[in-house]
Order: sequence, then C-alpha cells, then structure tokens
Amino acid sequence: MKYHLAVDVGGTWLRAAVFPLGETTPARRERIRTPRAGRPEAALVALLRELWPTDGEVLGIGVASPGPLDPSRGVILATPNIPAWRDFPLAAYLQDAFGVPVAVDNDANLAALGEWRYGAAQGHHDVLYLTVSTGIGAGVIVNDRLLHGAHGLAGELGHIPILPDGPLCGCGQRGHLEAVASGTAIARAAREALAAEEVSSLASLAAPPTAADVARAAHAGDALARRILAEAAGHLGRALAGFLHIFNPSIVILGGGVVQAGEVFLSPMEAALRAAVMHPAYLDGLTLTTAALGDDAGLLGALALAREFEKDGSVCDE
Amino acid sequence: MKYHLAVDVGGTWLRAAVFPLGETTPARRERIRTPRAGRPEAALVALLRELWPTDGEVLGIGVASPGPLDPSRGVILATPNIPAWRDFPLAAYLQDAFGVPVAVDNDANLAALGEWRYGAAQGHHDVLYLTVSTGIGAGVIVNDRLLHGAHGLAGELGHIPILPDGPLCGCGQRGHLEAVASGTAIARAAREALAAEEVSSLASLAAPPTAADVARAAHAGDALARRILAEAAGHLGRALAGFLHIFNPSIVILGGGVVQAGEVFLSPMEAALRAAVMHPAYLDGLTLTTAALGDDAGLLGALALAREFEKDGSVCDE
Repeated sequence: MKYHLAVDVGGTWLRAAVFPLGETTPARRERIRTPRAGRPEAALVALLRELWPTDGEVLGIGVASPGPLDPSRGVILATPNIPAWRDFPLAAYLQDAFGVPVAVDNDANLAALGEWRYGAAQGHHDVLYLTVSTGIGAGVIVNDRLLHGAHGLAGELGHIPILPDGPLCGCGQRGHLEAVASGTAIARAAREALAAEEVSSLASLAAPPTAADVARAAHAGDALARRILAEAAGHLGRALAGFLHIFNPSIVILGGGVVQAGEVFLSPMEAALRAAVMHPAYLDGLTLTTAALGDDAGLLGALALAREFEKDGSVCDE
Repeated sequence: MKYHLAVDVGGTWLRAAVFPLGETTPARRERIRTPRAGRPEAALVALLRELWPTDGEVLGIGVASPGPLDPSRGVILATPNIPAWRDFPLAAYLQDAFGVPVAVDNDANLAALGEWRYGAAQGHHDVLYLTVSTGIGAGVIVNDRLLHGAHGLAGELGHIPILPDGPLCGCGQRGHLEAVASGTAIARAAREALAAEEVSSLASLAAPPTAADVARAAHAGDALARRILAEAAGHLGRALAGFLHIFNPSIVILGGGVVQAGEVFLSPMEAALRAAVMHPAYLDGLTLTTAALGDDAGLLGALALAREFEKDGSVCDE
C-alpha cells in the first residue's frame, strides 16, 4: 500500500490522518490538543509516529498551519497560538524526522485547495475562499493555481483597509476587514454596545458575549444582535464586491464559524455585495456558497498538497 | 518579412504600429484622433490599412482598449469615451476585415504586460501595475500570467472600497480608491477646497484646477495643494499595502499622469504604504518604481499580446 499523510495544525487541535493512495477517506485519523508550552513539533512527530502505516510506504506529508509562513521553504514565520514557532523550519524538521518529502502551506490556502479538489469548488478555475471566524483567512485559486505571490505571503484578504482609523486588527493595523467583520469584531461590537447600555438580551449573559452568543440572540429576534451582525456582514459584503472586481472568480466559498449564523448574517452580506458590485457581469454565473468540507477542509487541503509530490519527491507543477 | 500589428485605443488617440518579427521598435507608427461620433471601428480599419505592410505577412494584431471588455471573446462591453462600442465584437470585426488573428485586452492589463515583457518588470513573476490618471487602472501578473478571472473582468484594483460613503466613483459606486486617489479625485478635492474659500494659489487660476495644476502648485510650495496631493497619496499608499497583502508581488509599477507629480505625491504615498504593511516581509526585496515605457506601454503590451499568436493562429499558453 501507498499512503499520504495530512496534518492540520490548529490553535486548539493538532489533527493528522493517513490516506491510502487515491482515497479521500482516511484509513486512520487522530488528534491531540495543541501543546500550550514547550515544543509542539515533538508532539506532532509523536502523533505522526503513532499514525505511521506499517503495511506500506508514505509518499509525502502535507501540513496546514496558521501563518504567516513561507510555503516555498516550509518555514513558519510566526503564528499567534504557537509562540515557539518563530522562523521555524517545519517542513525540514518533519522531513528529517521521517525521511519523506514534506510540504507546508497556510491553513486558509489549504482549505481553499481542499474545497477546490474535493469540495464545493470542483471544476472551477478561479476560486475565492474566505473563512470568517476569530480572524478572517482566505485562499485564492487563480487559473487553477493557489495564489502565493513572490514569497508565499499572498491571499491575506482579511487585511485590506476598510474603515480608516477603524478598530485595531489582530495584525496591529487599524480598520482592516478582519477588524470589522470577524467573530472577534462582532464580539467587540456587542461588548461596546452593552457598555454603552444599549438594550439587549445579551446583557443578561454571565460572561461578555461571543460572536456565537450574538448569533443566537439574533436568531431569537434580539434587535441589537441583528444590527451588529448586519453591520459586520455589510462590511464583508462590500469587501467581497471589491474582491470580485479584483479576482472575478466564478465561485466564492465562505467558511468559518461566523458564517454558520446563517441568514441573519448571509442575507445582509449578500445584499451589500449585490449593491456594491460595479457591473452586473461580476455576478453573472457566480456561485456564492458556504464551505462543503467543514472542519476537514484544512486536512483535505493538506492531502491535496501532499499529493503534489510525485514518487521522486519533487513537487509537480500542474 | 513577418510583422505584428499593435493598436492602442484611447479616449483621445487611436494609435497603431507595425513591428517586424522579434523587434520592439516599430517599422512604422501612426495615430489619429479617436472619432467622437459615428463608428470608430471604421476609422481604426482605415488606420490599419494605411499601416499594413506591403512586403510581407502580418501574423496577428493585438489591441489595447479601455474596458470593461471580455478578452476571451474580444468583445468591448462598454467604454466611457466610445459610446458606440457597447457589446461590440472588436476582435471579430478586425479579424473579418483583415483575415488575421486578433486579440483584445484592456489597456491597463496590456500596460502591465508591456512593462513585464519589455519594461520595468522584466524577470519578475508577480507584478502589480497601477496607472493613476483620470481613473485608476491596474494590471496584475500572477505567476507569469495576466490575471483575468473567470470572465476577463479581474484586475479592477481602482474599484475597491476605501472610504465608506466617500465620493462618487466613475463606476457609480462610492468611496472607491479611484474616487479618492485619481486625478479626478485630486481635481475635485481642489475645487471643493476653493469653494470652501481655503487659501491657495490655485484660487487665482482662470479655470477650475486640474490635477496637473494641483501638482504644479504643490511644487511651488502651495500648502493646500500639498495637503490635497498627500491625502490622495495616503489613500493610495494604504490601498497598496492591502494589495501587497493580497498579491505579495515582487514589483509595483506606477504609471499615469498623477504619478508624474513626483516626490510631492510619491513620498507621502510610500510613507503611508510602509506604515500600513502588516509585516515587513511584504517589503522584503520589493521594487517600487514608476513605469518605464510611458505612453507606449499599452502599444507594447498589445505587441506582446499579438506575439502570443503562433503562425497557426492559436494563442499559445505560456
């Protein structure tokens, strides 16, 4: 038997799975909590050792990791939830440990790749994938290839300026899309509204409201919660119109927890998008959909990445 | 002899040139005023007839035109300065007239292609070209290919939302980059400041100030003119930071009349760009430069496009 290994490094879980050649259902999968201290790469090696197939050969390992990272060298530049990985050569480390080729790319890029190979975007050539959760990540496929840019840092669509002097973004800048439309932004807006003594069912919660609390309250008809979601969704919709002007994709896929709020978020988002597009041709034949692969998008993207290794260990350019 | 013909359709001039195979200096070039009324395609055919070489074969014609247009079909969807061209099949029309293959792309895309093949971006793989004049046009090269998107409408970087409820854009939306950082935006800001009775040497002009007037006044030390240019430049710089996050190019080329204002525009633009980038890695090895080909960028881009025709008339995919 021949196998590929796929790894998804998250702030909470390290997931890994073994896929028999040509299959998208794993033979085995495991996850462990991402170590908060020490060297998470040692835990990752132990996890992969445990999964390593004994009845055949592993052709390659694909790894999805939070970034920023350099996919051409497989080096993690920095990642907020794993402070030990700063300029860390993850691909080389795993390659040394296992003696098979290893490729690393950022989680949003690989979620896009996963959706394109095995999910909602199959058959499309120009794909925009956005995940709206704590932050806003994105992966773009241009003409059947992941957009990487000169140093692999492209595709950071959450970090475009939307609101001059707007709220602080996770990246340190102000007014980025992520700062006004992510789960973090929604939770912040709710906290600020409650501090300003606005009337809402959210005021009765024991802890400061999360984006999920806001979504639940919106579903129950809470006016403040609806307004906060609609504002974030409006920002996202207008930004999406800009992305259509930039990329003219045939499909936009939305993933992440915030999108799971459903129509209370998606309806105002789509209305803002439609109102902000400069020519109806950008909407012609456009598919606007939610992610098909759910939590497995990163893992399946890592599988797609691993499958770009041919038996000789080189990455084949499709 | 074998030749390629290149055409640059502008709001003011129709330019055309004949290039001997493999050369970038034209054997002949001509321009005529773009007809304001009637059918400009007839004038274009007459221009090309006049230039048509009598001592050899024309392998193909490349045409740069204002958009929006569909490059895959060579159809002009609409273009503000040539109202007669609405859903006009320019490529098919010229192909019928001359019996040689014709390819059409928008002027900003082809200026980018020209700079990449023959100008400032030679040897780069990921290129961002912006032209800042009456409007803001852009062409993007991703991984050695022009960014076209699913229907050829990609690359409209002037039409991203920058300022919520900002000034009206040429496209009908509000607050786009083009509406706050183009020559039109600079002229509008100057007019509005004078209407608000701000003190400036611009007040003594006989006509409402143009962007070129503002640049001249800024060079002469006029404080209002400098502030207006710096504001537009600041918007452009912040937008450029967003484009670096999106595309991570190795070179940014700025063309167009506004950029010719020089340091009074470029210095505040670069300062805003540097301040707005979320990680210094986006600036590592980045070349930020002005266009090398000047007015000929579109024509040379059309030449590069024409050269994608092989002798059998098909477009070769590089």
